[in-house]
Amino acid sequence: MRQIDVPSTIQRLTDFIQNTLASAGFSRLLVAVSGGVDSGTALALAAVASGPGSIHVLMMPYGAWHAAAQRRAQLLIKELQIPSSQTYENDIAPMADRFFTALGLGAGQGASGAGAADLDRIRAGNIMARVRMVLLFDQARRLNALVLGTENKSEHLLGYYTRFGDEASDIEPLRNLYKTEVYQLAEHLKLPREILDARPSAGLWPGQTDEGQFGFTYEEADQVLYGLYEAGLSAEELAGGGLQPEAIQKVQAWVESVEFKHHLPYLAPDPVIVAA
Amino acid sequence: MRQIDVPSTIQRLTDFIQNTLASAGFSRLLVAVSGGVDSGTALALAAVASGPGSIHVLMMPYGAWHAAAQRRAQLLIKELQIPSSQTYENDIAPMADRFFTALGLGAGQGASGAGAADLDRIRAGNIMARVRMVLLFDQARRLNALVLGTENKSEHLLGYYTRFGDEASDIEPLRNLYKTEVYQLAEHLKLPREILDARPSAGLWPGQTDEGQFGFTYEEADQVLYGLYEAGLSAEELAGGGLQPEAIQKVQAWVESVEFKHHLPYLAPDPVIVAA
Repeated sequence: MRQIDVPSTIQRLTDFIQNTLASAGFSRLLVAVSGGVDSGTALALAAVASGPGSIHVLMMPYGAWHAAAQRRAQLLIKELQIPSSQTYENDIAPMADRFFTALGLGAGQGASGAGAADLDRIRAGNIMARVRMVLLFDQARRLNALVLGTENKSEHLLGYYTRFGDEASDIEPLRNLYKTEVYQLAEHLKLPREILDARPSAGLWPGQTDEGQFGFTYEEADQVLYGLYEAGLSAEELAGGGLQPEAIQKVQAWVESVEFKHHLPYLAPDPVIVAA
Repeated sequence: MRQIDVPSTIQRLTDFIQNTLASAGFSRLLVAVSGGVDSGTALALAAVASGPGSIHVLMMPYGAWHAAAQRRAQLLIKELQIPSSQTYENDIAPMADRFFTALGLGAGQGASGAGAADLDRIRAGNIMARVRMVLLFDQARRLNALVLGTENKSEHLLGYYTRFGDEASDIEPLRNLYKTEVYQLAEHLKLPREILDARPSAGLWPGQTDEGQFGFTYEEADQVLYGLYEAGLSAEELAGGGLQPEAIQKVQAWVESVEFKHHLPYLAPDPVIVAA
């Protein structure tokens, strides 16, 4: 796995955020904060880059599902001294439930809860992510703010996002950092211990964890993703370096199954031109 | 303005649709049909490319607002012999209204109706476009279908779309055709006269028309877009060719005001790497 210089990477990314705001002609950033390490790190970078006075935070729980995650988010918001007048909360349940009802996905938590069928869970999770996007971009429009995204390189390569949902943003500070590198920045930025220790979760249903869905850890994923697709190593070389062959295979299969996501949409060729 | 060969362009685009379905491993296409010429042309191309049996159609009116447009859409669906079991209708009002209420945009039609403030109208229009996206992609997931987009080159260059809304798709057959060229294809494909004669509208509020919002016609827009940005002509040369200088200026100003849309999201640079 590559080694990064954490302080100078933080400097590079805060410069990027500052320069982007200036060149795009915006003075405000809006961040959807979940209580996880990605949105926490993005928020902390933004606060360093442009000061807490220019940061607006939106929390979008589904009813009471994300109470613990929200408490973690509140810790960080307080620590970064983001004014409470710039912190908003929108419960997505009324909107998401309206979709679930219209689509026969069962009312309320049943749609992606413990008893739901796999396809129903996926559909409900996508709807929740997209309802959040609608609220986030509406708020950005109202505030005249840029939406700061929170996607990292591991999630991106693993296709672990909802198109037009949690991946939707205006500026992506973490997109070139693997998940384990986001943790290194988070440690250096002194994010609350509660955020650093929480198991990564897309919050799609109570108890859901990313690693539980993958069947491999982010630690494993990052070594495979970097080794195979960036350093040009073979699966055999990676296994020789100490990685479990089964983990390598699982990551590879996952990447192949989501590869199409990176090519969408397919764009038509030019028309047949007779005279230009 | 460039001249295209209409029959061979239709052949090229239907080949593109066929080949994309095959290479992506899908057998179904889902199209959101509004009653306008773009979705009508996309639908007709799809029906030629893969046969009506593989086409699924979703209509998403807001209450009774789009009754006339829906009647036009139904004419075409019938003409193309798309089975009624593959035609779905979802009224977006219950979902959109829930957002309007939560966001203080006024209940129901007030949110983007005649009396609404400009910003409220824009916000309501974006919400409607994104609610349609949520329903369209949910249906696509349920059906295991590719979403056929309907965006043309003029709309794209004019930024005349809602990000993560009506621009969201899996396959874009019209993206390299100017609006006036879409009409040429539509005529050749013998779309119902009612569709060919309707004034283009994003359907954002009753009576809304694209050209009314622009302050120039698509005829003017296409000549300017092609002339300035593709053929490399100057504004003076275009005016010499017979275009009104005022129209040229308006199109230019519009393109410049939306230019940022084509660069989003801004992606962070790589981290500082110490050892690879």
